[in-house]
Amino acid sequence: MPLQQQRPTGKGANQEAVRRHNLGTLLGHVHRDGDVSRAALTTRMDLNRSTIAALVAELERLGVVAQATPRGDRQGAGRPSLHVRPGEREVCVIAVELRVESIELARIGLGGAVLGRRSAPMAPGSNPDDAADEVVRTAADLLADVADDALLVGIGVGMPGIVSTEDGRIHYAPNLSWSDVAFSDLLEQRIGGAIPVVIGNDANLGVLAEHARGVARGMTDVVYLSGDVGVGGGLITRGRRLLGTVGYAGEVGHMRITVDGRRCRCGNRGCWEAEIGALAVADALGTPSHEIAHLVDLLDEVDTPSPPLREVGLMLGVGITNLINIFDPQAVILGGLLSALYPAVRDDVDAEVRRGTLDSEDRRTEVLLPGLGRDSVIVGAGELAFGAMMSDPLAVSSAAEGALAQVRAAPLPR
Amino acid sequence: MPLQQQRPTGKGANQEAVRRHNLGTLLGHVHRDGDVSRAALTTRMDLNRSTIAALVAELERLGVVAQATPRGDRQGAGRPSLHVRPGEREVCVIAVELRVESIELARIGLGGAVLGRRSAPMAPGSNPDDAADEVVRTAADLLADVADDALLVGIGVGMPGIVSTEDGRIHYAPNLSWSDVAFSDLLEQRIGGAIPVVIGNDANLGVLAEHARGVARGMTDVVYLSGDVGVGGGLITRGRRLLGTVGYAGEVGHMRITVDGRRCRCGNRGCWEAEIGALAVADALGTPSHEIAHLVDLLDEVDTPSPPLREVGLMLGVGITNLINIFDPQAVILGGLLSALYPAVRDDVDAEVRRGTLDSEDRRTEVLLPGLGRDSVIVGAGELAFGAMMSDPLAVSSAAEGALAQVRAAPLPR
Repeated sequence: MPLQQQRPTGKGANQEAVRRHNLGTLLGHVHRDGDVSRAALTTRMDLNRSTIAALVAELERLGVVAQATPRGDRQGAGRPSLHVRPGEREVCVIAVELRVESIELARIGLGGAVLGRRSAPMAPGSNPDDAADEVVRTAADLLADVADDALLVGIGVGMPGIVSTEDGRIHYAPNLSWSDVAFSDLLEQRIGGAIPVVIGNDANLGVLAEHARGVARGMTDVVYLSGDVGVGGGLITRGRRLLGTVGYAGEVGHMRITVDGRRCRCGNRGCWEAEIGALAVADALGTPSHEIAHLVDLLDEVDTPSPPLREVGLMLGVGITNLINIFDPQAVILGGLLSALYPAVRDDVDAEVRRGTLDSEDRRTEVLLPGLGRDSVIVGAGELAFGAMMSDPLAVSSAAEGALAQVRAAPLPR
Repeated sequence: MPLQQQRPTGKGANQEAVRRHNLGTLLGHVHRDGDVSRAALTTRMDLNRSTIAALVAELERLGVVAQATPRGDRQGAGRPSLHVRPGEREVCVIAVELRVESIELARIGLGGAVLGRRSAPMAPGSNPDDAADEVVRTAADLLADVADDALLVGIGVGMPGIVSTEDGRIHYAPNLSWSDVAFSDLLEQRIGGAIPVVIGNDANLGVLAEHARGVARGMTDVVYLSGDVGVGGGLITRGRRLLGTVGYAGEVGHMRITVDGRRCRCGNRGCWEAEIGALAVADALGTPSHEIAHLVDLLDEVDTPSPPLREVGLMLGVGITNLINIFDPQAVILGGLLSALYPAVRDDVDAEVRRGTLDSEDRRTEVLLPGLGRDSVIVGAGELAFGAMMSDPLAVSSAAEGALAQVRAAPLPR
């Protein structure tokens, strides 16, 4: 029997670290599943009943979960197992998605429920300071009707660009014409450093969301593709995001699949995004507009794809095949424009994937559309903001005291 | 500040699990470093001195480590810290590398020292049963002079082929003309199931070895390429191997980089291995032989590369660039034939990598040659065999009782 090699992370573990790990792990189950019996937690976490009861009691004291006996939940003759629910009104985050034409915000409760939404305009050519003002103003509005004793534990931001994991700087966001922007710092300054602001690339957050709450739930190895003019990749391997050394992993749009192909914005030829992105799709459809909504409408109407569109489909298939051969994932999820392109050219894509993947009989990779549709990125931004809490609920709860009031009262330029 | 999301694995941890984890983690440090002071272990594992002392004492009782006061090791006025050394004579594994023309075996002690080597011929067309017989016969020979009370804790096998992590079957090994072979079962049957036999793809073991003991030591994200006729990839991300859903990840040789390119053995055109593998190199050098040693000799003599060879270098650069854009690694290590190809065409490769990697000023990816040279795979096979011991030294030591005698006495067909 092969043994999966367990590589120790190098650190030891002590009693206090174990307790915090267990609290976070338990809260993670409740956050992802929404309602879990203590019996189920006992089984899943492989801990005894009294340990689980003590952990739940501690989280209840923190006010982040509640316990209840669900009606009619009796299995056999024993006492019904208490259920644990996330405090979705008691603990929340603000999730932000920077788009080219708008800024989307959501208040998301522990457990993942979207409890409120706002959309603010992103004026063409908006600079980062204007955008940060708009985010803080809209967030304060979204938080207006939250109970005063609720915990706001973080702000998560998703955006179409390359983000460094080292310092959270936006290295380059071509569609916003931003480069080298410390956007998380801009937000943190405006809210007086009340809570952490975390930021991620849209494809990276898309895969996080689909893995937590979409079609990739329960999978360990997933490739998510976001596509419009550019194509980005979000990667989950062994159940966790693959970000690379400085956070630049997943730039699959610049994987060259045909060295003499179409000219890419980056200067190279035959990059995957040059072959399957909005510009290539528009050319294949014979339309001068690259506007995504317009292209989606046209793709939705395609009954029999034209030869040029089939060629785009072939290139989509070639790139997906490369990623299957490299990652051996359970699923490749096609987001953004690709979720409209795929149904139009599915036969060509599927044929290319079958032909090009080695060992096709053993592979189980599925090509899927996102379960969360257009919400993948903002839901992922929420997951990112909740992330620290699932590591250490005690520290995060304690740090969040007073943050809600501080964000509501953030000094605004107008 | 961005927070790295910690995704809980779902399991809780209890006292006994923590103790075993700590024992394994400590042993891992000693195995990798060879000689560590207890003071260093205290710092690295973030545990207190008495816990470290107790863990070391337990491993010493098991006979897997020894303690000593190194001469002259006095820092400041305090007592010198005891050092912990791996029991390289007390604990060993057998590492096996199946090559096309030979079977290489090594006895490797805890700590990584190669304590003995043997080479057995692999007759052309050898079937898996013959090869398994040869491995067991040679292993018994290698173990002849080991102390009777030593622990043999595993056998690790590396080979050029696609291996399933689910059941350890060799799915396909084109160069050996084997397909669907349960080689680990064949070995385990011959030694009466005395110890586990673990098996891995050569590139996957190459990266494991370079990460543990070669040029990638201490790195978190690494791509290792093994190349002869085919090109395989071994991947480390976040410090651990990336194997994919069924273990087929890393088939970078079939990444298509130019869809109308050279015909590949797999039937496609423009696969990376068709553009940079031994067949392409031989054509570019104008030699009819694809024998690796011959090609290496010719490449070593190249002073100014010919235009066809420079074209191969360009394609090497294109593929490396793709992998940098996808993985954002600290290093891409070129093994096998590629370690001779790269120096011959370095200028073209480096220029292409510089041109094609996004954000080149922030990226820190180095293109490196293997630190272990031709030993990467066999050293990796040893690491694979030791892997389980670094997870749970108690269980593995206990299971290994009597295994040495059993393997020495394995019934052989001649």
